[in-house]
Amino acid sequence: MIFWAKDNIELNRQGVQGGQGQVVSRHPFNADNRPENTCFKMVGQMTLPPGASVGEHTHTADEEIYLIVSGRGLYTKNDGSTREVGPGDLTMTRKGERHGLANIGPEALHFIAVIAA
Amino acid sequence: MIFWAKDNIELNRQGVQGGQGQVVSRHPFNADNRPENTCFKMVGQMTLPPGASVGEHTHTADEEIYLIVSGRGLYTKNDGSTREVGPGDLTMTRKGERHGLANIGPEALHFIAVIAA
Repeated sequence: MIFWAKDNIELNRQGVQGGQGQVVSRHPFNADNRPENTCFKMVGQMTLPPGASVGEHTHTADEEIYLIVSGRGLYTKNDGSTREVGPGDLTMTRKGERHGLANIGPEALHFIAVIAA
Repeated sequence: MIFWAKDNIELNRQGVQGGQGQVVSRHPFNADNRPENTCFKMVGQMTLPPGASVGEHTHTADEEIYLIVSGRGLYTKNDGSTREVGPGDLTMTRKGERHGLANIGPEALHFIAVIAA
């Protein structure tokens, strides 16, 4: 099946997971039109403006990957330590683990997020 | 955990799944360094040069999404019908379903592929 770009759900949220500023995202599907029989729970084309962040949070029932497309981010790992990430870096948060991501660069931070379970 | 772009595994394959031409791809991990306890089985930053394709194949034990980044593709759906896809379109192939993708444009076709189970 195909989810068309023109039908993407656009979100513009403040304080995502307790983070700073605005998170802009585009999603091919949400809970309303997601097939029941898929392990893909969320796909998002994510944008963090300079200074914005997704706050630290735990994935209790699923896993998430972030693929950094462009920009400069500070990624908080499960152990609370942080590492700078950039284009092509992939983060993986497994079930029961925590993570967060902040834009620490002067440009927008673009990344692809996928949640599966 | 973080898989760094500089450590990506680069593949250059001919006739992938019986398709035409060359498929160039970059992967954060493969079977050797993939964590055992993740549902993410494969992540790939894929490039099909003009005329190249990933041949039709069935996902018997997992699911796959393609997120088109740039270029113009012809996607073969599970029922054998084809649709043109472009930037921002997302395809989803569930367990037991078939798909294929060909570059029908004059530029490279870039897409992100994720397999989960």
